[in-house]
Amino acid sequence: MPVRPEPSGLPRKIVDAVLFDTFGTVVDWKSGVADAVEAIAFRYGFEVDPIDFALRWRAHYQPAMEPIRDGTREFATLDVLHRENLIATARETGLPIDQIDAADLEWLNRSWHRLDGWPDSVPGLTELKRHFIIGPLSNGHVALLTNMAKHADLPWDVIIGSDVTRAYKPDPNAYLGTARLLDLPPERVMLCAAHNSDLAAAKSLGLRTAFVARPQEYGPSQRTDLHPTGVWDVIARDIQDLASQLINHTTAG
Amino acid sequence: MPVRPEPSGLPRKIVDAVLFDTFGTVVDWKSGVADAVEAIAFRYGFEVDPIDFALRWRAHYQPAMEPIRDGTREFATLDVLHRENLIATARETGLPIDQIDAADLEWLNRSWHRLDGWPDSVPGLTELKRHFIIGPLSNGHVALLTNMAKHADLPWDVIIGSDVTRAYKPDPNAYLGTARLLDLPPERVMLCAAHNSDLAAAKSLGLRTAFVARPQEYGPSQRTDLHPTGVWDVIARDIQDLASQLINHTTAG
Repeated sequence: MPVRPEPSGLPRKIVDAVLFDTFGTVVDWKSGVADAVEAIAFRYGFEVDPIDFALRWRAHYQPAMEPIRDGTREFATLDVLHRENLIATARETGLPIDQIDAADLEWLNRSWHRLDGWPDSVPGLTELKRHFIIGPLSNGHVALLTNMAKHADLPWDVIIGSDVTRAYKPDPNAYLGTARLLDLPPERVMLCAAHNSDLAAAKSLGLRTAFVARPQEYGPSQRTDLHPTGVWDVIARDIQDLASQLINHTTAG
Repeated sequence: MPVRPEPSGLPRKIVDAVLFDTFGTVVDWKSGVADAVEAIAFRYGFEVDPIDFALRWRAHYQPAMEPIRDGTREFATLDVLHRENLIATARETGLPIDQIDAADLEWLNRSWHRLDGWPDSVPGLTELKRHFIIGPLSNGHVALLTNMAKHADLPWDVIIGSDVTRAYKPDPNAYLGTARLLDLPPERVMLCAAHNSDLAAAKSLGLRTAFVARPQEYGPSQRTDLHPTGVWDVIARDIQDLASQLINHTTAG
């Protein structure tokens, strides 16, 4: 009866956990949010460009987290920030948000819970799950990420939300708190993201890094994050390609 | 384009999330721990009754959490408590634990991460996952529960460990903190457990409850929790039966 596996005879996996930025990297927020905006506009007879509205709503995202990152505001989930940003976006675009009933407004705000994966996301994650612990490393909170996983069939092993670490990336606690809860040293955790700045923060804290380009995240006029701008451990075409690269590396030793 | 589903036309699910006590309810800790004890005994030539050792080790479990529940000790994970309890059990039984090298001792202590499900656990959870959010509501911490899920193929949607709520059941924060992170009111969450006391705590806080008997948890001499002793929402033979009852209830409206 073997007491414990002998690691010397087995190929060493590059990491134990592969974690993912979600918005943009795993799921297509622009299309999902625009669909919800379009449905509301249809029901209420509003004139609105749904894609433009989604992009403007998202433009408030990073600034909204800033006071929480710098400690001048207590932690609040993305449901709270998205709601504030929705009101601001409606004001900017002239959308008569006051006419939307409470349940519909909540449904619209929670469109961020109901986003679909990119075509490669579910197959790539499913393949990775056979070899690694997989999970989000996202600014989403537990409920949002859980609902998103149910909606999009994302086969996460574990969900550690921003409301668990009480930190928004690139706050170091978001990365290190997640690794700590997995009881893994940072170098045994890889972050996969479509955003170079996210990877730079992760790398500076000792995590391994994988870049996948998502040139359609913001639509055809996207100018940022079309290419890797740092020295990352893996550059992959998409999550299926990431799985192939990591699993070949693992099985080849 | 439908704006949002019309709940009135659909059967109402009894709850949104079905959460599980794990040790004893979902996994067979006695066999898994005894197997590890036996392997160590074989390697080191120790005389030990593995099942007896596992039962004694487990007997330290509830008392070890007590100082954390009552606030006289800071939160520590089950890895820490299991290690202390292992040393105490070795002392009681005369097992020469000092002869075990550090890596083997760690492997033995982490046998609690490598437990197998009861035969009905994976099929029952897999069925429930199609209709409900499923996850552990356990005294295990995130890393232990994640490793256990990988080992036993438990298809959890989300893992909220005791190190997230910083509370050991039946501390109310263990139940309510988990519901809060799922953004669900207690009555939309069901706890399934093989332990009446766990269900009593959950019920007193407003959660729904399901009892499954696990008459082999402690072996043939088990005298406790052979039957439901409270008024629980569901009494099921096992997790597959729980799935059948909840899903029939759901689809029948």
